[in-house]
Amino acid sequence: MPKLRVHNFTISLDGYAAGPNQRLDAPFGDGVEGMHDWMFATRTVRAAQGLDGGTEGLDNDRILLAEQGIGATVMGRNMFGPVRGEWPDHSWTGWWGPNPPYHNDVFVMTHHLRPSFSLEGGNTFHFVDQGPEAALKLAFDAADGKDVLLAGGAATIRQFLRAGLIDEMYLVIAPIFIGGGERLFDDLDGGLDGYRCVEQASTSAATHLHITRREPRAAL
Amino acid sequence: MPKLRVHNFTISLDGYAAGPNQRLDAPFGDGVEGMHDWMFATRTVRAAQGLDGGTEGLDNDRILLAEQGIGATVMGRNMFGPVRGEWPDHSWTGWWGPNPPYHNDVFVMTHHLRPSFSLEGGNTFHFVDQGPEAALKLAFDAADGKDVLLAGGAATIRQFLRAGLIDEMYLVIAPIFIGGGERLFDDLDGGLDGYRCVEQASTSAATHLHITRREPRAAL
Repeated sequence: MPKLRVHNFTISLDGYAAGPNQRLDAPFGDGVEGMHDWMFATRTVRAAQGLDGGTEGLDNDRILLAEQGIGATVMGRNMFGPVRGEWPDHSWTGWWGPNPPYHNDVFVMTHHLRPSFSLEGGNTFHFVDQGPEAALKLAFDAADGKDVLLAGGAATIRQFLRAGLIDEMYLVIAPIFIGGGERLFDDLDGGLDGYRCVEQASTSAATHLHITRREPRAAL
Repeated sequence: MPKLRVHNFTISLDGYAAGPNQRLDAPFGDGVEGMHDWMFATRTVRAAQGLDGGTEGLDNDRILLAEQGIGATVMGRNMFGPVRGEWPDHSWTGWWGPNPPYHNDVFVMTHHLRPSFSLEGGNTFHFVDQGPEAALKLAFDAADGKDVLLAGGAATIRQFLRAGLIDEMYLVIAPIFIGGGERLFDDLDGGLDGYRCVEQASTSAATHLHITRREPRAAL
């Protein structure tokens, strides 16, 4: 059965996925310096930026794993962009420029619908307002037998945890303190009861967690 | 200059140092199964219980490190025992039986003073109500040039972090979710700004963090 997977979602030592004051010129908010250094240091991410070198090993392996077998993506509206509330227009097309890194159908969960649009590289963004289960059904249909990536952010992952819909989470603890902001593991109302950590492994740059369900997910 | 050190204080993946409902027959509260497995599996802790075998390597090394160069101990009243408020009598002498693992002068921070008492193995418990800096001065005096262990619990560590008094923290992340309870990294009011994580390393049982000050602590 195809899975809903979270990959390389990074939190600080004090549990924050973002600092305070998330905004256009600081998508992760304040105090997050170094949070994604582990990622930008990898050979794969550097190569995607046209840079030589970079780390091999677990950090790089986890970047590669995130791209394997994914056929569609789900994300929250705050991960798609800094605009809150009604869309003033449709000029915002994401943080990622003309060729986002998803290369499949991306379902953005929002209370404010807008038309689907396509960018380069096979990226098509859809907007859905029917809740996590409905969004996931659409994504599984689009994925055509492959898995679905739940890209984030923290509030969206929490929403899917509370709904019991996530199959696998590969999380990362970055060796920084943020001191405030948005926690991943908050307001879960028992949403972690069905999960366990089956592996934790550290590199010099990060600690990687692999979290799975205790019991298989019911079919949608 | 002698240091104030935290050793092997363990939190869950979701950041809790204890679950809800801490009480006499569950000192760490509910939902903490497996939290200290890494510790009880080590050769050193097993040997202290008269058991053979056990893990070597980082888990065991960190147990040994906690015993080196310590001359006195500070702890919070809730770590000393489950009694809250006024002492009904002085029959409670700690969780640890006739020979506690500290083997030095232990300063218990409380609003409710009681007389000092001694147990086997060089353990003498004192009760102090003057705040963290005063407690630490007494402990440094008793340690006579050695370091002081800040044993916990979470609220007491937070209090010393807010006061900027901790020099070194060796923390442990156990691969469990607790889902609620008392967080270590909460209500710190910038208390972590002066600290950084200089090492994170995982075993199959736990992830170990070494956290140090960015600048030396001012003398008391």
